[in-house]
Amino acid sequence: MRETLLPFFKNATFIRMMIFGASELQDLVNKVLAGNRRAIAQAISLVENQPDRCADFIKYIFHATGNAFIVGITGPPGSGKSTLINNLAIEFRKYHKKVGIIAVDPTSPFSGGALLGDRIRMDDVQTDSGVFIRSMGSRGSLGGLSRATMDAIRVLDASGYDIILVETVGAGQSEVEIVKTAHCCCVLGIPGTGDAVQAIKAGIMEIADIYVVNKADRPGAQEIVNELKLLLSIDPSVKEEEHWNIPVISTSNKDKTGITELTETILRFNEHLKTNKVFSHERELTRRKNEILEILKVEFFENILDNLMNKQKWEEILNGIITKKTDPYSAAKSIIDPFLK
Amino acid sequence: MRETLLPFFKNATFIRMMIFGASELQDLVNKVLAGNRRAIAQAISLVENQPDRCADFIKYIFHATGNAFIVGITGPPGSGKSTLINNLAIEFRKYHKKVGIIAVDPTSPFSGGALLGDRIRMDDVQTDSGVFIRSMGSRGSLGGLSRATMDAIRVLDASGYDIILVETVGAGQSEVEIVKTAHCCCVLGIPGTGDAVQAIKAGIMEIADIYVVNKADRPGAQEIVNELKLLLSIDPSVKEEEHWNIPVISTSNKDKTGITELTETILRFNEHLKTNKVFSHERELTRRKNEILEILKVEFFENILDNLMNKQKWEEILNGIITKKTDPYSAAKSIIDPFLK
Repeated sequence: MRETLLPFFKNATFIRMMIFGASELQDLVNKVLAGNRRAIAQAISLVENQPDRCADFIKYIFHATGNAFIVGITGPPGSGKSTLINNLAIEFRKYHKKVGIIAVDPTSPFSGGALLGDRIRMDDVQTDSGVFIRSMGSRGSLGGLSRATMDAIRVLDASGYDIILVETVGAGQSEVEIVKTAHCCCVLGIPGTGDAVQAIKAGIMEIADIYVVNKADRPGAQEIVNELKLLLSIDPSVKEEEHWNIPVISTSNKDKTGITELTETILRFNEHLKTNKVFSHERELTRRKNEILEILKVEFFENILDNLMNKQKWEEILNGIITKKTDPYSAAKSIIDPFLK
Repeated sequence: MRETLLPFFKNATFIRMMIFGASELQDLVNKVLAGNRRAIAQAISLVENQPDRCADFIKYIFHATGNAFIVGITGPPGSGKSTLINNLAIEFRKYHKKVGIIAVDPTSPFSGGALLGDRIRMDDVQTDSGVFIRSMGSRGSLGGLSRATMDAIRVLDASGYDIILVETVGAGQSEVEIVKTAHCCCVLGIPGTGDAVQAIKAGIMEIADIYVVNKADRPGAQEIVNELKLLLSIDPSVKEEEHWNIPVISTSNKDKTGITELTETILRFNEHLKTNKVFSHERELTRRKNEILEILKVEFFENILDNLMNKQKWEEILNGIITKKTDPYSAAKSIIDPFLK
């Protein structure tokens, strides 16, 4: 089973995995910069499936990036992220913003059905040419999901999308890494599930810029809002962050309440970043550092190991561990030591 | 908010984070090898919270590892993993096996409530001294969850636990890495959710040794079993894997059906590994390689970067990116190039 069933299901991916020559690459760059939707889709496939070509491609478009406002929307499965993002996209369209949506959550309806055709249509936004929706298949990019997602965001940014909404499931380290590269992070919880507590446990809450209690039409919504506000009020760091009090906003996709308030709050946070240079510069440095670390982890680290280690060396080391002549930590040290000299 | 609210909630972790001296470390090693439950709990806290001491500790206990059979149980939130694991533990106890349980899923009842006292009691097994349950807090070990979980497994292994059940949520790369270090991987799906399809999408299915359709008392269970069997029957790799046909087992925690069959199947897979040396050796090499890669990624890579890069160098590079003088890929390359000479 391992490895071998997968290609069978990967046909759709294979078809998208065209090999680009140098001139085709330049052509793709031009089309992406011009906002061509088909080219954008191709470019995202490229950064997802051809990590070796990706660095070249990103170099060409990088000068055009940095204009989009990247908003991470994270919360557990079933917290209504996709519907909320759908509604947010509609709101941002009222401001004449071009909206990109990237879904990293494999349980998201944006990505969920694409494989076997049972996609839930987000009709409200999917027919709008000012909205581009893309799901990141965690299959194709396993081992480099964060890096691929960051590059997909860059593609949309370079193509002229003003707001990029990134949906992640909020569990798993890669997902946390992705959220860290957003300018603004909205953490979702829903009433009656102990999400607030879970978010703290999962290390998610400390990345929140805006807390959203979604499905606020359900009983217990006000209690969770109060609980969160209490938690936030005892936070001694608010002053350091130049007076951004993390808001707690109730939203309901059912009643369509709170969506406008959330949209305005996201835009207000954008203004806050623009007017508080020290705060936003520190964040920008952190964001950029995380990006580089992701690239280093995925691309170069594995390349270095490939150069340094061949099959025979691996077998020697691994057999040493299996026969208990060494332990994994000493083995790891012996691999990396040559670099430290 | 960032970073600063966290210590407030981390008190419980802080208390456990005692600093061990050399003699205390040896004392802890001895007690862990003797199966002392309190020492096991301390040791897992150590590998979780003190990565710098962890390598030393693992070296001391490593000779005693390699006897446990590690079973990964992975599936989406709400698929009934915890209850199934509870029931499996009871079954394994009938074989007089000592059972360790490690929950990596932050939504697991094993870990879920521990923070604010609303822990759902797994009474059936939590009062049994032959069962040790531990949840891995993704807070404390963010950045090294896979590595910490692998080491927690080693602690239980060295302490004489025969079967170690590892619960993961089956989403997120770290979780997939964790599952890869199990000897046997059970992938859970439930009827009516399109899990089978999701599992394929999420890259989970290719790691399955046993497929479990849980909540089989629900309508549609037989259909999903049939669908999975069909998918598995077209898999051309079965022969290569020395005749392990991936079984599809229906289980129900409600009706308590299928639990015995699943237990027997897990033990049968263990026998299969023992009798098929080539197959199991290949898998063992892969497992061990993954372990080393995790250690390299987390420990050494970050240490190397710390040595190489100071705050000023980072700022130079990051400002270069912010001002578009360079791009993230070129910047990453400039960091790593000195190593390649």
